[in-house]
Order: sequence, then structure tokens, then C-alpha cells
Amino acid sequence: MNPVKVGICGLGTVGKGTFDVLTRNCAEIAARAGCSIEVSHIGARRGSDIEGITISTDIFAVAEDPAVDIVVELIGGTTVAKDLVLKAVANGKHVVTANKALIAEHGNELFAAAAKQGVSIAFEAAVAGGIPIIKAIREGLAGNRIEWLAGIINGTGNFILTEMRDKGRDFHDVLQEAQELGYAEADPTFDVEGIDAAHKLVILASLAFGIPLQFDKAYTEGITKISRDDVEYAEQLGYRIKHLGVARQTDSGVELRVHPTMIPEKRLIANVDGVMNAVLVQGDAVGPTLYYGAGAGAEPTASAVVADIVDVARTLSAEPGHRVPYLAFQPDALSNTPIVDINDIETAYYLRMSAQDKPGVLSSVAQILSNAGISVEAITQKEPAEGQDHVPMIILTSRSIENKLVSAITDIEALDSIAGEVTRIRVESLG
Amino acid sequence: MNPVKVGICGLGTVGKGTFDVLTRNCAEIAARAGCSIEVSHIGARRGSDIEGITISTDIFAVAEDPAVDIVVELIGGTTVAKDLVLKAVANGKHVVTANKALIAEHGNELFAAAAKQGVSIAFEAAVAGGIPIIKAIREGLAGNRIEWLAGIINGTGNFILTEMRDKGRDFHDVLQEAQELGYAEADPTFDVEGIDAAHKLVILASLAFGIPLQFDKAYTEGITKISRDDVEYAEQLGYRIKHLGVARQTDSGVELRVHPTMIPEKRLIANVDGVMNAVLVQGDAVGPTLYYGAGAGAEPTASAVVADIVDVARTLSAEPGHRVPYLAFQPDALSNTPIVDINDIETAYYLRMSAQDKPGVLSSVAQILSNAGISVEAITQKEPAEGQDHVPMIILTSRSIENKLVSAITDIEALDSIAGEVTRIRVESLG
Repeated sequence: MNPVKVGICGLGTVGKGTFDVLTRNCAEIAARAGCSIEVSHIGARRGSDIEGITISTDIFAVAEDPAVDIVVELIGGTTVAKDLVLKAVANGKHVVTANKALIAEHGNELFAAAAKQGVSIAFEAAVAGGIPIIKAIREGLAGNRIEWLAGIINGTGNFILTEMRDKGRDFHDVLQEAQELGYAEADPTFDVEGIDAAHKLVILASLAFGIPLQFDKAYTEGITKISRDDVEYAEQLGYRIKHLGVARQTDSGVELRVHPTMIPEKRLIANVDGVMNAVLVQGDAVGPTLYYGAGAGAEPTASAVVADIVDVARTLSAEPGHRVPYLAFQPDALSNTPIVDINDIETAYYLRMSAQDKPGVLSSVAQILSNAGISVEAITQKEPAEGQDHVPMIILTSRSIENKLVSAITDIEALDSIAGEVTRIRVESLG
Repeated sequence: MNPVKVGICGLGTVGKGTFDVLTRNCAEIAARAGCSIEVSHIGARRGSDIEGITISTDIFAVAEDPAVDIVVELIGGTTVAKDLVLKAVANGKHVVTANKALIAEHGNELFAAAAKQGVSIAFEAAVAGGIPIIKAIREGLAGNRIEWLAGIINGTGNFILTEMRDKGRDFHDVLQEAQELGYAEADPTFDVEGIDAAHKLVILASLAFGIPLQFDKAYTEGITKISRDDVEYAEQLGYRIKHLGVARQTDSGVELRVHPTMIPEKRLIANVDGVMNAVLVQGDAVGPTLYYGAGAGAEPTASAVVADIVDVARTLSAEPGHRVPYLAFQPDALSNTPIVDINDIETAYYLRMSAQDKPGVLSSVAQILSNAGISVEAITQKEPAEGQDHVPMIILTSRSIENKLVSAITDIEALDSIAGEVTRIRVESLG
């Protein structure tokens, strides 16, 4: 096959990583792809001279370059990046992107445009960095009805929760360190509030269940309120707290939610620590499968970008209908399964409350839960600290519809014997 | 696209599972594949009547059927199965197989025949059951130079080692239970001696390093000699014993070995328990990635078979050069990198010996190791049991060339103060 010409737009961390990997491993990549993959054009604000490569400070020049077969979008953001991808597609170019926000928020429109032009848009690097999770769900599990998936898909959050557990540290203390280490941004909202994870979850859910991308319908809850106490109590109960993205097919639709989640410590995914990512996927035929690796970083992300480039290079001349569909299912086969409102999801719960240390409190709380049809699966009451008349009371509930639990919490908080708010963390067995 | 016609040869556990999955999930599979996948012919010893499907007791009739596009070989073994695949290929049919022994021992010949005919032979189900590990290495990590991989790729062995650790049981006791549960065959040699794992390792190594299949050069050592004591001492040192397949690219060639291995308990793969499989792959760009799931069973294996069928269906009309190559690298790009003899591999070691409980023994042993250029990284000497004059001495060594270690062991065993044989288990940090 002829050499395939790649234009890279954006020469930041991932752009440089992609260029480095393509250059360093060019012989092996060509031996796999069956053709050489050549970077022929780079669009970047500051053009560094590289022999044989056209450098443009206008990235749109890459999308206009007749010699370029594949445009690699690595500028990030959802405005210029969107225009760039649409321009590339309009010019009949295939696109590879690592941009999770772009795909999660504008993917439906981009894929429709690409389908019209008969070109590919590949985005393996948009979810969980170097882990080939999109390929696994889209192709490797193609025989399965996916039942649910749960992922640690934000390394910053996982680093923070791991440090809190291992070293008994506070959230804000660890966040500051993560910022100093460069794991967290100066404005950490995107990571710790779950927005970044929601972008990735929305993409995974579309691939798993054959539904359009619906970022606006994902429920997002951050880890900023997780206390050292909750981390420790979880541990005592045989659980770990992870910031999970969970997507599940139920009779009432697809649950799509990012939130702190208590999971049994014996599950493999509970042992994924530090900045690493992992996604657990349950298929009806295969059962549980797990995919683990670096979720960010220059070369792990580049690894996914290059894999996409090789895939696209192989199918440049294929009939569009013979390529793997953008969202795993053929565009005309996507379903309009509704997304379940967070109030209607079903899960189990961990509740922590500050209870007066006197007889009858537990029974009042248990009565409220029971009236809501919720059973108590486990309960722990701690010793009162010296001079305190309130003690921490921890309850693990049965599975319940969220709105029933929420209204039970309101009733519990109204009890005189309960001080302050009830802390609530969702519990998933992932079994 | 037109419906794709599949002929299934062999209706045992995996054959039935494949038929069930294709039937149950036909709508979802078609929505992904862009065409319906229809089983049109089944070759099986006992033909059960299924509407619309031709049943032949002669499996070769499936390979001769002009209506069949893809022949699925699920009869097992390496004699009739080989003839069947060659016949199918000669008739211009694509092949999907779950047969690890066939691929590991005859793959080079089969792929050469398939290349001549321009047809696919897909074998995802041959390694680690439902885990899409072949796709991950061959496509998902295509941008990487793979440095090494290590896998728990035999569920029976992992079940036995897990039970020995969790319950302090003996090898033979657990093996008997595994046989009763159906996890182990009446003749367990294939599983516990590592032959089954070696078949899979040889396939993974070819995909990772771009070398031909060389089953005869793989080193194989079983788990039959692992004692309860070793499992316990490993635990005390912060390690677990797993029966690993290890393949590593080194300056002197590719190491290709299956043996009991001590690995740090904090590695995710050390926590893969029971009959589950997992493969850890280290790429130069992506770093470590891990793939986990069921390594056997009707539907997990069927999951991989169906994924292959969908892949093949998509590329039925593709130019052969545009398909993913059989062994990840283009056939003319395979390298003749030698396989390293087991005597020349480099790793660290756990040594257990029965030492006389008197001064000077440790220093004699340490001197022998030191003379061989091997350092002692850790040492534990146990208390003597009541009335015993020998005590267990456990040593963790630095990395060393195997033949130096073996000759040091000979010298150690010759010491008057050491009774019996020195037990040796290879140690890999997998870091």
C-alpha cells in the first residue's frame, strides 16, 4: 500500500507524544499496518522546523492540505476543534481525535457529517488514554448484549481517593499535592466534580448500548465531600470508595451516572490505585471483563491515537458500510432507549449520621427505612468520643429506588436524635 | 450487506455456546455488523434437527458447502482439525477457530495456506477465552514496541493456586476437587504442567514481537511441586505464586517460558483469583495494560468466536493486504529473533532449603551465591520445629542468569549443612 499521510493539529503533550511514537516506532508500525505512516503536515501555534514536514500556524491549513489522508485533532476544546473536524470531514479526510468533550458533546453531529462524506472519525484516545477499551467494547465484545459497565476513568480522582485511603489524608490536602505533581489542574472542577469522567462514560454507554451520545443527561456527582471517616468506615466494612462512572441497561432505560461509589474490596477494580484507569464490562455471554492501564499522559494517549491511525489507514479504501461503525452499532440501528433519571435509579446505599447516644435512636431510623421499603443490611455504631453525646452510626441498606431513599433521609434528618445531615454514598456490588 | 453464512464444525461445549449466542443476540449482532450472521450448516457427530440449518455428520461437508462463507472450527485436536481448516481454506472459505493447540503448533503452515487463498483465519478464542487479548495486542497496541507480557492463561492452575493460598490446602487435594468440579480434566497434565498455557503464550508472543509461532521452543514447568509452605512463605514476603506465561524481548532474543512465578502481591495481576485469566502487557508507549476475564467456558469462549465472525464478515470483500495480518505483523515482516534458551534467561529467584541449625551455614550459602555473582536481596530463617536440627531457610536473590543460579544450587546442595534439594521459584517484579 502507498504511504499514508497524517496531519497533526496541536503539538501539546499528546501531539508531541504522537509525533514521537510515530517517529520512534515507524518500522514496527509499518510492519503491522502494511504501509508506512508518515507525518506530512503539522498545525501548531509555534512551528518548530522538522525536515520534510510542512508546518502551519493555521491548523485549518492541515485540513485543506490535499496530500493529507488523516487529520489528527489534538488541540482540545469544543469550538475550534469542532470546526476543524467538520472542515476536515468536508474535505473528505478521515479524522482521529483524543477529544472526549468534543465527542461526548458534539459526536452525533460529527458522525452524521462523516457518514455523509464516507469518512472515519476514530476516538480511542478519548476514553481511558492508552487502554484499548473502545475497541474492546465495539469489536471485542460484539457478540454480547452488554448489561453494565463501571469505570475508574479519571486518574486525578483515583489518585486522591487512593492517597486518602493509604495515608489517612484529607481530600483538600491530597488535592493540593496532586496539583503540585501536575496530576490535577489549577482549576480541578473538571476532574473532581466528575465532568471529565461523565464525558468518557457517555461515550462508553453509547458504544455498549447502541444509543446516541447524551452528555446532558448524565448525572454527575463529585468526590469533594468524601471524608477521611467515610474512607475508613468503608474499609472496615470490606469496601473501597472509588469515583466510578456507571452505565447500566435496565427495564426502564439506561442509567448513566458518575459518583463516589463503595465497592467490595475483593473486586479487582477496587484494587486499581493511583492515577491508573480501569473499566469493568459485563456482557451476557462473556461475563465480567476488565481493562486496565494509564488513562492519561503523552505516550499512553499517543498509543491510542496511533492505533486509530493504523485502523483508519487499513480501511481508507473500504466501503463505509464495511468499516466498524462510529458508535459500535450501525447509525440507523441506534435505539431511543431513555436515560433513567437519577431519582429513579436503583442501588444500595451507605448512610452515615451523627446519632444521639441513647436507646431507641437506631429503631427510629430503621423504622423510617422500613416504611420506605428499604432493609438494613448492616449497621455499625461507634463508641462515643470522650465528652461527646453523639456517635457516628453507619448503615448499609438493601437496593432501593433513589427517590425513596432520599425521602427517607429527609425524615431521618428531621429526627431530634440525629444531628446535621446524613452522608450518603451509593454502593455497587459489581458482581 | 448480504447475510453472512456461517458453518459450525463441532457441537460440543463451545460449539453449542456459539450457536446459542449467535441465535440469542442475532438482532444486536446484526446491528453491529451491518449484516445478519446466519448459521446455515452444522457439522457434528450427532445431528440434532434445527430448522433451516443443514446438519452433516461429515464435518468436511461444511467446508465443501458453497453457501458457507465462514467455517468455524470447534472440534479441537490437531489432526482432523488441521485437515478441516486446510480444506476450508482451499475452498476459499474464511476460518474462525478456538483451537490453541492447532494455531500454536501448525499456525505458520495454516496462515501460509490462507495467505495464498486470500482468506482470513481468526483465533481470538484460542487465548484467554472471552478476553479480547489478541485484538488488544494486534490492533489496540499497534503503535507500541511490546517489551514483555505475562499472563495467567490457565484457569485450572490458577484455581488450584488460589485455593492453596486461601485455604492452606495441598496441591493434590485441590486438584481432586477441581476435577470433581469439572475445572480440571481426568488427565490434568495439559493444565498443571503448563502445556495449555504454553500454547497460548506462543501465540501471544508471536503477536507481540512479530516472530513465527515456535511452540517447540517454549519452556514449560508445571505447578505440581509447589508446596503449601512455599505458598505461605511467599505470602509472608509480600508475594503470590502464580503459574505465569512470560514472554520478553531482550537483547539476546525472546524469552518464552511458562512456570510458577512469585510476583509482588500489590500488582493487580497478583489479585486475579480462581479460574479467571488475565494478561499484563507492557508497551513502550502505553506502559502496563491488563486484560481480565473468563478464560474458558461455553459462552465466554463463544463471545470471542462471535467477535471474530463479525470481524471476518466485515472484511469479506476487503483486499487481503487491508485486513489485520494473522500474526499482527505482515507475513513478510516477521523477524527471526531467536528464542532464548531457558538456561540463558535472566530473572530473580526464591530459594528454599533445609539448613542445619548452626552458625556458619548462611555464610557458606551466601558465599556460593556471591561467587556466582548473585546477591542476596532478602533472607528469612525459620525457628526449628521441636526436636528438629534443620530449619527452613528462604532466600530472595538478585536477578541472575539461570545457568549461574543452577550451578550455584548444585554447590549449595553439596554442602553437608544443607539437607535434600533446594526448591527454586522464579521471581518477577512485573514493574
